[in-house]
Amino acid sequence: TTKGFHLKKTFGKWVICLFIGIILGCIAYIIKTTVGLLQGLKFHYTNHYISKGMQSYAFLTFLGINLLYVFLSSVMVIVAGPLSSSSGIPEVKGYLNGVKVPESLGFRSLFGKIVSLILSYSSGLFVGPEGPMIHIGSAVGAAISQFKSSTFNIYPNIFLPYRNDRDKRDFISVGAATGLSAAFGAPIGGVLFSIEEVSSFWSRQLTWRTFFCCMISTFTVNFLLQGIGSSPDIHDSGLLTFGFSRLYLYRYSELLCFCLLGVIGGLFGACFVFMNIHLNKWRKEKLKLNPFFRLGEALLVTIVTSILCYYASFIFGCRYQSNIIIEQSVCEDQTNTEMVQFFCPTGMYSELASLLFGNPDQALRRLYSRTQNMFTLPSLLVFTLFSFFLSIWSSGLWVAGGLFVPMMMVGAGFGRLFGQIVGLWFTNIDSSIYALVGSAAMMAGYCRMTICIVVIMVELTEGTQYLVPIILAVMIAKWVGDFFNESVYEHLMEQKYIPFLQTLPPHSTSNIRVTNVMSKLVSVLPEVCSVRLLLSILNSNYHHAFPVVNTGETGDSRLYRGLILRNDVLILLKNRVFYRGSGEEIYLDDNFDYEKFMQETSKKPPSLSDLNFDQFELDSFIDLRPYMNSSGITIHNTFSFVEAYKLFRTMGLRHLPVIDINNEVVGIITRKDLL
Amino acid sequence: TTKGFHLKKTFGKWVICLFIGIILGCIAYIIKTTVGLLQGLKFHYTNHYISKGMQSYAFLTFLGINLLYVFLSSVMVIVAGPLSSSSGIPEVKGYLNGVKVPESLGFRSLFGKIVSLILSYSSGLFVGPEGPMIHIGSAVGAAISQFKSSTFNIYPNIFLPYRNDRDKRDFISVGAATGLSAAFGAPIGGVLFSIEEVSSFWSRQLTWRTFFCCMISTFTVNFLLQGIGSSPDIHDSGLLTFGFSRLYLYRYSELLCFCLLGVIGGLFGACFVFMNIHLNKWRKEKLKLNPFFRLGEALLVTIVTSILCYYASFIFGCRYQSNIIIEQSVCEDQTNTEMVQFFCPTGMYSELASLLFGNPDQALRRLYSRTQNMFTLPSLLVFTLFSFFLSIWSSGLWVAGGLFVPMMMVGAGFGRLFGQIVGLWFTNIDSSIYALVGSAAMMAGYCRMTICIVVIMVELTEGTQYLVPIILAVMIAKWVGDFFNESVYEHLMEQKYIPFLQTLPPHSTSNIRVTNVMSKLVSVLPEVCSVRLLLSILNSNYHHAFPVVNTGETGDSRLYRGLILRNDVLILLKNRVFYRGSGEEIYLDDNFDYEKFMQETSKKPPSLSDLNFDQFELDSFIDLRPYMNSSGITIHNTFSFVEAYKLFRTMGLRHLPVIDINNEVVGIITRKDLL
Repeated sequence: TTKGFHLKKTFGKWVICLFIGIILGCIAYIIKTTVGLLQGLKFHYTNHYISKGMQSYAFLTFLGINLLYVFLSSVMVIVAGPLSSSSGIPEVKGYLNGVKVPESLGFRSLFGKIVSLILSYSSGLFVGPEGPMIHIGSAVGAAISQFKSSTFNIYPNIFLPYRNDRDKRDFISVGAATGLSAAFGAPIGGVLFSIEEVSSFWSRQLTWRTFFCCMISTFTVNFLLQGIGSSPDIHDSGLLTFGFSRLYLYRYSELLCFCLLGVIGGLFGACFVFMNIHLNKWRKEKLKLNPFFRLGEALLVTIVTSILCYYASFIFGCRYQSNIIIEQSVCEDQTNTEMVQFFCPTGMYSELASLLFGNPDQALRRLYSRTQNMFTLPSLLVFTLFSFFLSIWSSGLWVAGGLFVPMMMVGAGFGRLFGQIVGLWFTNIDSSIYALVGSAAMMAGYCRMTICIVVIMVELTEGTQYLVPIILAVMIAKWVGDFFNESVYEHLMEQKYIPFLQTLPPHSTSNIRVTNVMSKLVSVLPEVCSVRLLLSILNSNYHHAFPVVNTGETGDSRLYRGLILRNDVLILLKNRVFYRGSGEEIYLDDNFDYEKFMQETSKKPPSLSDLNFDQFELDSFIDLRPYMNSSGITIHNTFSFVEAYKLFRTMGLRHLPVIDINNEVVGIITRKDLL
Repeated sequence: TTKGFHLKKTFGKWVICLFIGIILGCIAYIIKTTVGLLQGLKFHYTNHYISKGMQSYAFLTFLGINLLYVFLSSVMVIVAGPLSSSSGIPEVKGYLNGVKVPESLGFRSLFGKIVSLILSYSSGLFVGPEGPMIHIGSAVGAAISQFKSSTFNIYPNIFLPYRNDRDKRDFISVGAATGLSAAFGAPIGGVLFSIEEVSSFWSRQLTWRTFFCCMISTFTVNFLLQGIGSSPDIHDSGLLTFGFSRLYLYRYSELLCFCLLGVIGGLFGACFVFMNIHLNKWRKEKLKLNPFFRLGEALLVTIVTSILCYYASFIFGCRYQSNIIIEQSVCEDQTNTEMVQFFCPTGMYSELASLLFGNPDQALRRLYSRTQNMFTLPSLLVFTLFSFFLSIWSSGLWVAGGLFVPMMMVGAGFGRLFGQIVGLWFTNIDSSIYALVGSAAMMAGYCRMTICIVVIMVELTEGTQYLVPIILAVMIAKWVGDFFNESVYEHLMEQKYIPFLQTLPPHSTSNIRVTNVMSKLVSVLPEVCSVRLLLSILNSNYHHAFPVVNTGETGDSRLYRGLILRNDVLILLKNRVFYRGSGEEIYLDDNFDYEKFMQETSKKPPSLSDLNFDQFELDSFIDLRPYMNSSGITIHNTFSFVEAYKLFRTMGLRHLPVIDINNEVVGIITRKDLL
C-alpha cells in the first residue's frame, strides 16, 4: 500500500500540473484577447479622428482612454492590496527561498493582478505582462495544489498528501515557470527561469514536471488563440518571429561590436537598476501607502507617457514607404514591415508612431525586422531614450506590470541604432541582428539572468542562428552590470525586507564558526512536557520551532531528540492530546492519531489566545515524541559558518539546531542569522 | 587576503573553463576533419571502382578499408584498456555521483578514446561520436583543472586551490557538457545534459560557467571548421539544418500521430535497451576481457555491416532524379537533397545507397529534408531495420563509439516511414517533421532524457517551429520506455558494478530507520592517537574515512568530534607529524603545517606498506584534531532512511556518521549502504 500510495501521489502531481498548465494557458489567453480588445477600442476611436485630421480630438481621445485604463488599474490595486502591483517576482522568489510574504499568493492578489495587468498593459504605459504572469502562475500553482480556502473553510481530503511545505513550494515553482512560458510562448525558457532564478533547490522529477506543465500552457494558449474551426494548420509561433536569412549572417569582426553591445546593455541595465531603486526608495518614503498619492502618480505617468508618445510621433517627419527595401533572400513575415501611417499622407509612414503609437509587440517586431532602412538614426535615438526613462518611471507604480517587454524594447532600440551606426562605416551590416542582441544584453543587464534569457530569445525568435552573439552579449552585460550593482529583483527584495540567501555566503565569513552567529537563547521543550510549562514557553516568545530535548537523569540536561513546530504544538493543545501524569506512568486521554494530526496541520493553525484550559488540564502532560520531527538535521558547534550556510540553503532548511559534544542543544540557526 | 584569494580562485576557474572550451573545440575539430579525411579516402577509392563499374573490386576496397579502420580502432582499445571503448557515459555518470572508476579519466583512456573514435566512426559502423566526446570532455576537464601527473610526478602549486574533490567534480561536469556541445554544436543542450543527466548536484555559478565553456567550444569548432581566411561570414549552423517552412506546419489531428510516434519510439527504445543489455551480458560472460575474441567480434560486425550496406544498396533499384519534387515555399539548403548515384545510370539515384553508403550526417540530412518523395516505403523500412539491429550489435564492441547518432538515424527512419504511410491516407503531410519527431522519440526511448533531447533537437535543426510535437513525443517515449526498463546507461552502470543513487530511494524503504541500514562496525580514532594504534586500525580494514572521537573521562566513550580520511592519516604518518606523549602534555616534533598538509593531499597518497617506523616512533602520538573535518554532517540514529538518503545525495556525501542521544558514534552510512 505504501507503493500504491506513492504511485497515486505521483500520478496526482501530474494531474495537478495538467490543470495548472491548462488554467494558466486560459488566463494568458484571456489577458491577451482582452488586451487586444481594449487596445483595439482605443486605437479605433483615436484613428477615427486621425483619419479625419482632427489632431487635438485624436489626442484627447487617446489620453482619455489611457487615463481611464490606468485609473481603473490603479483602483484595482488599491482595492486588492499593494501585493497585486508591479511584477511580484521578488515575492515569488522570496517564497521559494523560504520566506513567506503573507497574502502574496492569495486569491485577492491573484484576481487584482489579472485585472490590473489587463488595464495597465492596454494603457500604453511602459510595462509588460510577463513578470505579473510569473506571479499569477505561482498563485495558481499554490491554489490548485492546495485547494483549500481559509475564507470558506473548505479542506478537501483528496489534496491532503500535497498539503506540506515541500510539495507546495514545488507547485509554486512549477506555476512560476508555467506563467512565464505561457506569456512568452517559451516552454524551455520557463523551465530554465525556474531553475536559474527563482529556486534554491532542484530535482530532476520537478524539472520534468515543470517542463510538462509549461508545454501544456503554451499549447493551450496557441490552441485558443488560433481557434479550433478557423484553421486546421498550427502556427505555433512564438510571441515574435525573427526572419530567417540564409544569405548573410555576420562576420567575425562583428563579434567585437556584439561585445560592445553587451557592455552597453550592462551599463544601461546597471543604470536602470540604480535609478529605479532610488525612485522606489523615494516612493516608499514620500508616497508611503497613501492611495491618493499612488493613484495620482500613476495618472501623472500616463499623461506624460501619452503626451511624449503622441507628440513626438507628430513632430517627427514622415518617410516614403518606398524607402523600405525588402530583401528577397529573407524568409520573413510581411506583417513585420507594415508601418503606421498616423498623420502622414498616403504612401508615407511615421517612423516614431510605428514604434511609440501602437502595441509593444508590434513595435518589437518592427525593430527586429530583417528589412533594412525602415528607421532613421534620430528616431531610434528618441525611441530608446523615451522607452528607457519611461520604463524606469513606470516600474513600481501601483499598477500591475513587469519589465521584460519594456527592457526588450529599450535593448532593441539601442541595438538597432548601434547596428545602423556601424553600418555607416561598413557595408552589408544587418541591424536587425543588433536589435536582437541588444535586447538580450539589456535584459541580462537589468535582471542578471543568463541561460534563461538566451533560451527565451531563441524561442521568441524561433532561430538559433545568432546564438553566439546573444550568448556573448548576455555574458558581458551580466559581468558589467554585476560590477556596479545587483539585479533589480535582489535590490527590490532588500527594499521589501525579504531576506534572501545568496548562493554563497560573503567571503568575509570564511573563518567564522557557527557558534558566532547562532542564537544562543534557544527555548527547548522536554519530550514529555506539562501543559502549564508549554503555555508559558509559547507565551514568552515567538519562535517558530522548538528543539525537543531529553532532560536526562539529572533533569537539567538538554539532549537533542527532535524538532517540533510551534503550530504543531498549538494543534496538540487545541485537540487536548493530554496525558495525566502520575509518577512515571502516563495515560492516554484521547483517540487522536497521527493521521488526524496531519489533517490538522494542513489547516489554519489555532491561535494561542483562543486556547483556554482549566486547572486539571494545566496539570496534564503532552508527549511530544510521536509528533516531533526526529529526522531533522543538526550540526555540531565545531561547524564552520560557510558549511552551515551551504547545508541550510541546499536542503532548504528553516531551522538548524546546534549541538555540542554531549548532544546538548546549545543554539539554533535560522534564516536571519545567516544574513 | 581571504577575499583576494577567493577572487583569484574564481577568476582562475573562468580561465580554466576557457582552456577546457578551447581544447575541446580543437579536439572536436581534429576528430571531425580526420574523420572527413578517412571517409573521403575510403569513398574516393570505392567510387573510383564504382565509376568504372567494377562491382566486386569496389566492394572489396570498401570492405578492406573498413576492416583496416576497425582493426586499428580495436587494437587501440586493447592497448589503451577497455575504458576507452564504447561511450564512457556510465563511468562519467558514476564519477559525478561519487563513485570513482580508477583510471577512467586518465590520460591513457583519453588518448585511446580519441584515436579509436576517429577510426571507428570512419569505418561505417553504426556508432556516433557524441557519447565518447562526453567522456573525452570529462577527461580533459579533470586534466586541465588538476594539472598534475602521477606518472611524471608533476604537481604545480598554482593549481593547488582546485585540487579538491568538489572542484574536480565540478570541472569534470563542465567538461562532460562541453564535450557534448562541441560534438553537436549545441551549447544549451550541453548544459542541460549536465544538469539533467550526469550531475546529482547543481549550483547557479557552475551552470553559468558550464554555459560559458560550452559556448567557447562550439565557437572554436565553428571557427576552425570555416577557416579564417576563406570566408568572413559566419555560418554558425548546427550539425544538421532543418529547412524552414512558412507555408505548412501541421494540423491538430496530426498531434495524435506524433503521440503514436512517441509510443513507437518508447517501444523501440525499450527493445533496444533489452537486447543491447543482454548482448553485453553475454559478451561479458563469454568473451570476457580476451582481446582476440573482442577484436574478432569487432571485425565480424564490420564485415556484416559492410555486406549489408553495400549489397542492399546494390540490390535495391534506382529511381529517377526527376521524381524528387523540390518545394519552392521552403527555405532549405540544397545539399540536403543531393543523392548518391552508386551504380545507377545518369539521371537516377540509389535510394538505399543515399542512406547506407556514405557518412551518417549526410544520411540524417536527407532523412530530415523538407523535400518530399525522395524515398519509397520499402527503402525506409529496410534502412530502419538495418540501422536498428546493427546499432544494437555495434554498441558495446571494443571500439570507441556512442549511441546518439545511430539512434537518431533509426528514429528518423521510422519517423519518415510513418509519415509517408500517414500521407497515403491524408494529403499534404510533411514526412520530414515525422522524421524529426521520430528521432527525438527514439533518443528519449533509449536514454530517457527529456529537456536535454528537446533542446538538442532544436539546436541541431535551428528551429523551434516543431517544439510541441517534439516535446509530446519525447514525453510519451520516456513514459512508455520507463514502463519496461530503465535507461541504457543505468543498466550499463549496473552491469559495470557502478553503484548509482537514484534521485529518490525505492518506495519500499519509506518506513525504515537508518539504524537498519548503517554499518555498525565502524572503526573510530581517538583525537590524540598513538602511532601503534593507528597502524593497527589502518591495517585491520579498508575504510576510507574514520570518525574521530573524544574518549571522554572514562576512556571508553566515542563522542563524535570530526571525520578524517584514510589518505589524510597516511600523509600524517608519512610526514611523521608525531608528538611524544608524556602524561597529558604533548610536544611538537615537526614544522609541518596546514598548508603543507593541503599540498600533500593533492598528490598521490602514500601506501601503508611503504611506511616503516621504529619503536620510538611507534610510541609517539598524532594529534588528529587540526587535520580532521569538523564541519562534517552527522545524523542521529532516529533519522528515517529516506531523509538520510536525500541528505546524502543532495549534499554529495561519501560518509555519513550516525550518532546516538549522547553524541556517541554508533554507525556510519556509505554509498553502498543506500543501494
